[in-house]
Amino acid sequence: MTFTVYLSGEIHTDWREEVARGAKAAGLDVTFTAPVTDHPASDAAGDHLGENDVQFWRDHQSSKVNAIRTRTLIEKADMVVVRFGDKYKQWNAAFDAGYCAALGKPYITLHDADIVHPLKEVDAEAQAWCQTTDQVVQTQSYVLRD
Amino acid sequence: MTFTVYLSGEIHTDWREEVARGAKAAGLDVTFTAPVTDHPASDAAGDHLGENDVQFWRDHQSSKVNAIRTRTLIEKADMVVVRFGDKYKQWNAAFDAGYCAALGKPYITLHDADIVHPLKEVDAEAQAWCQTTDQVVQTQSYVLRD
Amino acid sequence: MTFTVYLSGEIHTDWREEVARGAKAAGLDVTFTAPVTDHPASDAAGDHLGENDVQFWRDHQSSKVNAIRTRTLIEKADMVVVRFGDKYKQWNAAFDAGYCAALGKPYITLHDADIVHPLKEVDAEAQAWCQTTDQVVQTQSYVLRD
Amino acid sequence: MTFTVYLSGEIHTDWREEVARGAKAAGLDVTFTAPVTDHPASDAAGDHLGENDVQFWRDHQSSKVNAIRTRTLIEKADMVVVRFGDKYKQWNAAFDAGYCAALGKPYITLHDADIVHPLKEVDAEAQAWCQTTDQVVQTQSYVLRD
Amino acid sequence: MTFTVYLSGEIHTDWREEVARGAKAAGLDVTFTAPVTDHPASDAAGDHLGENDVQFWRDHQSSKVNAIRTRTLIEKADMVVVRFGDKYKQWNAAFDAGYCAALGKPYITLHDADIVHPLKEVDAEAQAWCQTTDQVVQTQSYVLRD
Amino acid sequence: MTFTVYLSGEIHTDWREEVARGAKAAGLDVTFTAPVTDHPASDAAGDHLGENDVQFWRDHQSSKVNAIRTRTLIEKADMVVVRFGDKYKQWNAAFDAGYCAALGKPYITLHDADIVHPLKEVDAEAQAWCQTTDQVVQTQSYVLRD
Amino acid sequence: MTFTVYLSGEIHTDWREEVARGAKAAGLDVTFTAPVTDHPASDAAGDHLGENDVQFWRDHQSSKVNAIRTRTLIEKADMVVVRFGDKYKQWNAAFDAGYCAALGKPYITLHDADIVHPLKEVDAEAQAWCQTTDQVVQTQSYVLRD
Amino acid sequence: MTFTVYLSGEIHTDWREEVARGAKAAGLDVTFTAPVTDHPASDAAGDHLGENDVQFWRDHQSSKVNAIRTRTLIEKADMVVVRFGDKYKQWNAAFDAGYCAALGKPYITLHDADIVHPLKEVDAEAQAWCQTTDQVVQTQSYVLRD
Repeated sequence: MTFTVYLSGEIHTDWREEVARGAKAAGLDVTFTAPVTDHPASDAAGDHLGENDVQFWRDHQSSKVNAIRTRTLIEKADMVVVRFGDKYKQWNAAFDAGYCAALGKPYITLHDADIVHPLKEVDAEAQAWCQTTDQVVQTQSYVLRD
Repeated sequence: MTFTVYLSGEIHTDWREEVARGAKAAGLDVTFTAPVTDHPASDAAGDHLGENDVQFWRDHQSSKVNAIRTRTLIEKADMVVVRFGDKYKQWNAAFDAGYCAALGKPYITLHDADIVHPLKEVDAEAQAWCQTTDQVVQTQSYVLRD
Repeated sequence: MTFTVYLSGEIHTDWREEVARGAKAAGLDVTFTAPVTDHPASDAAGDHLGENDVQFWRDHQSSKVNAIRTRTLIEKADMVVVRFGDKYKQWNAAFDAGYCAALGKPYITLHDADIVHPLKEVDAEAQAWCQTTDQVVQTQSYVLRD
Repeated sequence: MTFTVYLSGEIHTDWREEVARGAKAAGLDVTFTAPVTDHPASDAAGDHLGENDVQFWRDHQSSKVNAIRTRTLIEKADMVVVRFGDKYKQWNAAFDAGYCAALGKPYITLHDADIVHPLKEVDAEAQAWCQTTDQVVQTQSYVLRD
Repeated sequence: MTFTVYLSGEIHTDWREEVARGAKAAGLDVTFTAPVTDHPASDAAGDHLGENDVQFWRDHQSSKVNAIRTRTLIEKADMVVVRFGDKYKQWNAAFDAGYCAALGKPYITLHDADIVHPLKEVDAEAQAWCQTTDQVVQTQSYVLRD
Repeated sequence: MTFTVYLSGEIHTDWREEVARGAKAAGLDVTFTAPVTDHPASDAAGDHLGENDVQFWRDHQSSKVNAIRTRTLIEKADMVVVRFGDKYKQWNAAFDAGYCAALGKPYITLHDADIVHPLKEVDAEAQAWCQTTDQVVQTQSYVLRD
Repeated sequence: MTFTVYLSGEIHTDWREEVARGAKAAGLDVTFTAPVTDHPASDAAGDHLGENDVQFWRDHQSSKVNAIRTRTLIEKADMVVVRFGDKYKQWNAAFDAGYCAALGKPYITLHDADIVHPLKEVDAEAQAWCQTTDQVVQTQSYVLRD
Repeated sequence: MTFTVYLSGEIHTDWREEVARGAKAAGLDVTFTAPVTDHPASDAAGDHLGENDVQFWRDHQSSKVNAIRTRTLIEKADMVVVRFGDKYKQWNAAFDAGYCAALGKPYITLHDADIVHPLKEVDAEAQAWCQTTDQVVQTQSYVLRD
């Protein structure tokens, strides 16, 4: 059994690599997809379309280019993992979770216990809450077992 | 012309009342809906179903009760206003925005200029970004003009 | 705020009346809908279309007539309450829950604690589990508060 | 012609193997999928996410993990076989049938004649009622013939 | 309880009036809708848009105008009755039935026993087969009972 | 019988008033909706959200505000009339037609004979092509006849 | 470019073979699918599930088994050809056309000129009307050209 | 990562080849699809179905044949590029954009700066506006980066 898993959220730690290593070690047949995780490149995703003096429009232009990739990959995924780290606002991660919820796309969350309360609406629609990448891998191992 | 507008997000300031007053003053035929904005009541929304020692499950139980209301009202709304204030994580607001985006439900955001960058994915799918409740009312006045 | 609530499941006790009385006492603006709850009438729902010697086809004919009502009312409801009593198989109640789940229609369950385990898949997609009709009414009171 | 068939329901007999053997003997090009059928493993599907003292939440946690697999496989299947055995409540099987019905996914049922009446709503939306695994295989043979 | 019922098919007998009279006599709260049943007017529905020498295009033009009405009314109906008489090809009636089936819109058929075999695919997706307008009314009486 | 009709396209002639007058004279029960047809106001629809030096972003901002109204009204309409005049590019009219086509929303076109060829893809999905507002009214009269 | 084409309708002539031969001769990369075209087998499709004395239920049982195949193949097809011959009622062909129309699945018809009028509603939603299998092949050749 | 990209719009310049060459040079794994771009062949797409004296019906017949291809390819594409050149009305390009918008299919536009204003509604729903084919390729390079 094979699955495509989109890894949404935090881009400043190597949690995606941890999950991928774990899945490989467990022998899982999973294809991982993700947004562009190079932060400066992501912020500049639309710059080739024209420079903008106004921050709002620069961000707007780049976000819409990024969305071509993220929206398509989320829709093609069998499940999504949404990671909330301990830095930044990460509204885009919560946005992806809401997007999944409305599509009926199963997602699980990955975050520490100290942000359980502010994430309660996000967790309420999730299929599971993981605190470690190891739990993410175990969840996938279970889901994909023969 | 009449519209139903769901007011999502921040519950610690009176922005909803400001918008409603402005709409009334402008003579707009708008019905406003909202989540339960009484914070302690919202956190306790599921407590009548049974007490929970574990914070995660208490939050889970309450969030799912709240979702009966919020999901239904969002789906019935003609448009949604998503407000991000200057306190708290407000992941539920970003979640609602993502939910709207996937449904194709038009939404506008209301937030200060200093959080334009972290909200870029949320704003990218929005129909408008407002910085003041007055702009929200003006937007509705325009949308609903005869 | 007003809601339409479909009351699915058990037809041999007066739980629907209890819920309706409670909602009325609480001053809620709720419209309740339900399947035909007259058991012999429901079993005979298709008999006017022709008698059948074979039990399977008599049941089939009647069930499809009942489904005209139940499917339409579930789709029109804002939320559904699915009741499992202590008698009978009640597969139709679980069927309705699955139907709601696939539609993204919010539902809550009403059943005793001793059947929590066999109902775990049904409860997993529910917004709430109630053990008493009073809890059903309290849930609605919360969801509909001004 | 090839088909993917999800085998839902009873996990205490070897009906899935019977169907698979029959399909193989008939030379059918069918891929069978199924939930995790190891009962203790299924009940413990979420235990790696954290232990729960309360039965309801343990079940809840496990069911939501199982749903990642079952919901995805049902949506990918060309048809579903829903099996009701002579033991247990099997509300999850009826739930799957309702889920299929709302999706417009064709399903057939497999059960003995003595439970025709309580399963009448489930059978009413089914494409066929089989009493033996041999009939399931024959149905597939017909559906897939060149 | 109220229903909107679209009456599709045969336009050369007064079966629609029989159904309406029966529903009124039974005190049912039903709104009936229908295609334009004036045959020459229906054939000429598009003539005001320009005359056509070629029969195919005249028919095409008129059918597309008729479809504005029929498609909209079918989508708004709670259920559809599809009538097959003993004359004409009535492919439009079968077309409407297929349209309903794909939408998941409940429909019942009304036809004599001698055309059961050629209508088997149409009846297979129907919720009921009636042979008389009286049976149509009885079905509605049951579906709408308090 | 009543209909809601959205009038899309050209805003520099009084064709909307002609259609409305004709419908009134014919005694039709039609509610007409439309985009904001005050051209300078439409171009400035987003100016209250902030001035833009770059034409592209000013247009972008205004168009997204206009879309709150137009998208909602198109989705609520029973049918749409798309008017192409003899001036301007009118790509927004063709855009609305494509939007309707994807939604399965019936629309008719209103344009002169000399642009039949460039509009062939737009007309191919339309239910009717009218050359005069009188034909639009006649089409509605037919569609809505008792 | 490759296409999957479902061939619906008449089963008493070899039009499917003609189309397939023509497509092969034209070097088209088309996969053809079809219902079971062995008439006695199709009528008996459900007989292995149990004998029925009543014609209606025998037909019902068989039609629902056939629908597992036909519905799935129509939904998987890129386009559908619906053939009306000069014999039999062929309501199932019109039913398939209506099913396609509601799904937004492109279909073309294949029938003689003398039944243009009774097929006008079916042709109105079709992408093309062919009178010969050669025209069907030419249409596919055009659609698939590099 | 691989993408299918549909290239809609202008057929009188070689912009499609430029995009394809650029994508190849950049080593992108993209499959490009397009309408039939041979103008006379496209106008004659339906002529094999029968000659028409009336221009409207000739165009109608051809457009509906073309739509079999274009609609299917748009629905299968991961993203769409919509090109507006400096000649012709190009309403079909705007129509395709509206079609994409309603489907939630990401599209980008390719056009000169001097038509920004008349294309504002089309650009408002686009993910990006490109002025050169090089920008189209850069956008795809970004979207598809590993």
